[in-house]
Amino acid sequence: MDKDQYYMKLALEEAYKYKGQTHPNPAVGAVIVKDDKILSIGAHKKAGTDHAEIVALKNAKEDIKGATMYVTLEPCSFHGKTPPCCPAIISSGIKRVVVGSVDPNPKVSGKGIEWLKSSGIEVEVGVLKEECDKLNEDFFIYITKKRPFITLKCAMSLDGKLAKENGESKWISSQKAREIAHIYRKHSSAILVGINTILKDNPELTVRLEGNEYQPYTIVIDPNLDTPYNANIFKKGYEKIILITSANTSNEKKNYFKSLGVRLLELESFDIKSILKALYEIDIMHIFVEGGAYTISRFLEENMWDKMLIFRGYKFIGKGISLEFDGDFSKTYKGHLQAIDDTTDLLEIYNGYIAF
Amino acid sequence: MDKDQYYMKLALEEAYKYKGQTHPNPAVGAVIVKDDKILSIGAHKKAGTDHAEIVALKNAKEDIKGATMYVTLEPCSFHGKTPPCCPAIISSGIKRVVVGSVDPNPKVSGKGIEWLKSSGIEVEVGVLKEECDKLNEDFFIYITKKRPFITLKCAMSLDGKLAKENGESKWISSQKAREIAHIYRKHSSAILVGINTILKDNPELTVRLEGNEYQPYTIVIDPNLDTPYNANIFKKGYEKIILITSANTSNEKKNYFKSLGVRLLELESFDIKSILKALYEIDIMHIFVEGGAYTISRFLEENMWDKMLIFRGYKFIGKGISLEFDGDFSKTYKGHLQAIDDTTDLLEIYNGYIAF
Repeated sequence: MDKDQYYMKLALEEAYKYKGQTHPNPAVGAVIVKDDKILSIGAHKKAGTDHAEIVALKNAKEDIKGATMYVTLEPCSFHGKTPPCCPAIISSGIKRVVVGSVDPNPKVSGKGIEWLKSSGIEVEVGVLKEECDKLNEDFFIYITKKRPFITLKCAMSLDGKLAKENGESKWISSQKAREIAHIYRKHSSAILVGINTILKDNPELTVRLEGNEYQPYTIVIDPNLDTPYNANIFKKGYEKIILITSANTSNEKKNYFKSLGVRLLELESFDIKSILKALYEIDIMHIFVEGGAYTISRFLEENMWDKMLIFRGYKFIGKGISLEFDGDFSKTYKGHLQAIDDTTDLLEIYNGYIAF
Repeated sequence: MDKDQYYMKLALEEAYKYKGQTHPNPAVGAVIVKDDKILSIGAHKKAGTDHAEIVALKNAKEDIKGATMYVTLEPCSFHGKTPPCCPAIISSGIKRVVVGSVDPNPKVSGKGIEWLKSSGIEVEVGVLKEECDKLNEDFFIYITKKRPFITLKCAMSLDGKLAKENGESKWISSQKAREIAHIYRKHSSAILVGINTILKDNPELTVRLEGNEYQPYTIVIDPNLDTPYNANIFKKGYEKIILITSANTSNEKKNYFKSLGVRLLELESFDIKSILKALYEIDIMHIFVEGGAYTISRFLEENMWDKMLIFRGYKFIGKGISLEFDGDFSKTYKGHLQAIDDTTDLLEIYNGYIAF
């Protein structure tokens, strides 16, 4: 690993700390280095606050004239919620900028790089490109496909069961597997489940990781507004809950939920495309679909998913609930298999076809 | 790897060539070495013919006085279908015998080794013991548990389906996976299926491997004797087919099958234990259970299996046929995962609990 890669890796690590909570913005990290000394590290933390480049510039305590800035994503050239980063970099005296990914937005892609170059800054593009692209694979899909990035997740036995016949699904996967699932939750904008999961399991759907302060939204597909007022999902705050329901459901319920601060999305159709369209319109960048079997099956049936995580428990369940949808035999997915611990459980990660 | 291990490995490789076809005898290989020169290699090839030690002794073209014999399993001390091996080894002038596994049969275990030692031969036991034990894991179970060793095999999609709703099951696994399955067939005494597999798929259930001349038996659990007279399983010879049926089925059919040379096992009950007992009584050492979902599920339900091979196709099937049985959530199996090729298919091997 050469020096450029080393510092870019630091920028990546800084960016990952805030992955998820920057939505609908990308996660970005920046490192400022001069004469082999790290002068500053910064990351974008939340939409509406300073971008990573600005954080790093502000953090620097020593003179950065002549320094190199490493940034995981091309600096922005346009005025969004905050001013563009390019002028700030130029006026700071930074001499060289090393960029990981190019901005995927076709309207601005490459413009930041050009702006810096035309101001006499040396720009290098593509250092740890693959890793930087992966950091924001969700943002890239969100921008180019105009829909949320979709990660499906389920715990499954060796024989493909998500639960026993009676719905019992605890303990298919190990404690360690559940911890890993919390990291994936944290990296998403919202956790999405069907109403049956709420009624049967009454989960909290929170990120439970030491030191974590970020909670993604919870989205429930709830056509008849059956979510109980005292469901555990409300523990993380009413304003974190989005219920997808129909316009025909009881006004009383709707008004009560609204008065609490719950967001309601009223749809005419609950097909996957309509749901994704509605979520895109409210800036949901990445949904983490956790169940149940019915809801996950709908995404698979529409071939509308980007990543699937199967936490495979080394157990047989026999009679039970499995994924049910009209599938296509002919498609083969490349799996990345990751052993979770020595004796039990495998995390299988599949990349879906990118549709519409 | 030291010299002893090297020559034992050669003996193992020779034994594996005939694995399966020696049933109900173990697969055994022997190598005779003198002054770092291999004088002879031999293996047991079929029940009723010479044991590996005798084959190696007869094969030797040079004087073997003072040589070392490597043999994967303790030489036998009793008169079975052929005379015991110990006297032949002793009279040959072999000076040292290196043994892999000790005979599992409690009645004779260690007696061969003692016999050799008492005749002044230097005996070393346990070289590549693990590999030698694995070679005959089926024989060891057969001898000690008095039932066939049970390998279950199925091809399964990521979501645990063995077939589509209409029963279609081809192409779940890759060509390479099917080739590997033929090696496992070859290593068994008999391939076992339920009658539905015959009626739906009409498979040949033959070993199709280049240069192979051995075909295991095919056993069909066929309570009503529904196997068609022209089923493809008969292609490998009527004498290779065993139908497990009830005493109440039509005498006409039974007599016709018998006249062709088909073996009928007439049982009162078709539970797994009764079937295993009947198969043990006719010297079936290792059954390779290939389906369908119902039959495999019965073995899992009884917790009566030694090894399970899941050929995992990287596909989703959705609506389809999966394993259905009253399972036990609490049991966790250690899986050995073996990538079959770069892009598709995984062979997952699980070791079951050894029951009764």
